Amino acid sequence: MYRLHYAPDNASLAVRLLLESLGCAYETRLVDRAVRAHEGTAYRALNPAGKIPALETPRGVIFETAAILLWLEETHTGNAPPPGAPGRGDFLKWLFFAANTLHADLRLVFYPQDSVGEDHALQANLHAHVTKRLCRHYAILDEAAGAGHGFFNGPAPTAPDFYIASCMRWSALYGPGGTDWFSPGAFPNLHRLALRLEALPAVERAAAAEGLGPAPFSAPQPCNPPEGSAV
Amino acid sequence: MYRLHYAPDNASLAVRLLLESLGCAYETRLVDRAVRAHEGTAYRALNPAGKIPALETPRGVIFETAAILLWLEETHTGNAPPPGAPGRGDFLKWLFFAANTLHADLRLVFYPQDSVGEDHALQANLHAHVTKRLCRHYAILDEAAGAGHGFFNGPAPTAPDFYIASCMRWSALYGPGGTDWFSPGAFPNLHRLALRLEALPAVERAAAAEGLGPAPFSAPQPCNPPEGSAV
Repeated sequence: MYRLHYAPDNASLAVRLLLESLGCAYETRLVDRAVRAHEGTAYRALNPAGKIPALETPRGVIFETAAILLWLEETHTGNAPPPGAPGRGDFLKWLFFAANTLHADLRLVFYPQDSVGEDHALQANLHAHVTKRLCRHYAILDEAAGAGHGFFNGPAPTAPDFYIASCMRWSALYGPGGTDWFSPGAFPNLHRLALRLEALPAVERAAAAEGLGPAPFSAPQPCNPPEGSAV
Repeated sequence: MYRLHYAPDNASLAVRLLLESLGCAYETRLVDRAVRAHEGTAYRALNPAGKIPALETPRGVIFETAAILLWLEETHTGNAPPPGAPGRGDFLKWLFFAANTLHADLRLVFYPQDSVGEDHALQANLHAHVTKRLCRHYAILDEAAGAGHGFFNGPAPTAPDFYIASCMRWSALYGPGGTDWFSPGAFPNLHRLALRLEALPAVERAAAAEGLGPAPFSAPQPCNPPEGSAV
């Protein structure tokens, strides 16, 4: 039994999607962003960086979204190639690309105040530069998804699929600089991936739990969660 | 036999350190930053993101520094806990923390023009915000290194050790905003890790190959490589 510390439509969503996909038993604990609980002492005892999510496991707490995803793929019989399998390198490089290149830049768009302060003009300048970079990241992912040789957009979903689809959703919804820069339909292979994932019962369960609506990746609507808040 | 596409004192350093530590046979190919070869067509065929490093393996090309590190740890008998071992979660979370939290923020400090443009005042503003965050990352790492329960700063070096030590070196040397914000000695547990790593023959070989001087992590000096350039 796992315990996922989450906030609706936060990075924890990628972990919930994989937990559902793998059929893992888990419970959730809301990290209440309305009172900035992720920055409090109790939560920092789980994750000193104060970022959501953290996963309590029988073998200790894991944080960093992609570390949790990878650990779950390794611990359960999922669709990801295990160490030593031919596709392992591809699987790892797209997982790290999602975490370290795509998601890291998305954070700059969602929380510009952390990098340039509260001034709106400075935030708009950062937004303009980083979203240009993000479009290149999505173009690279779209091409890789179309080539079909990587371990995302493969025959059965793995961690990078869920992580990248979540990033697409967040790109279409969040950030004080607006979301005009991103449209899921602009990247046809990723769009097909989004549609395919949405049809999975595991995704439907996760979407219901966090109030994500009927097309959470291909046509994202603001979330309406049963508890807590996304921002 | 591997082929590492590298530039001296770039992110490829972390990969070279691990290749040396694992005793892998490898050859290197300089990516000539002086002519921006990493942005050219030939290099982008290896890594479409145009980032250094890429590693050619018998099973295809891998990019993303931490993906390469993890793949090498899994493919060879290193010191890292394999999947299923008790310390695997700790190992993964610090590896991803290094890639996704520490190194991602360092890139903002090294290449501010990519995020805010060429204006010096805008770059200085970004530098001030991000280096504050980086000091918190280092403090978290220093505490974890002191607690000794993680798979970095353990009895035998693994990927996060080499990666984090490399980040310390780069923090002390690079970025147009200056390096006053960082001192290796300010983080005593990380400083001890740096000293310990420097004494390893594998580190001495890597340092010689890239011209890093005698104390590459604890007292970094600008690199003086036999070929190519760091920036």
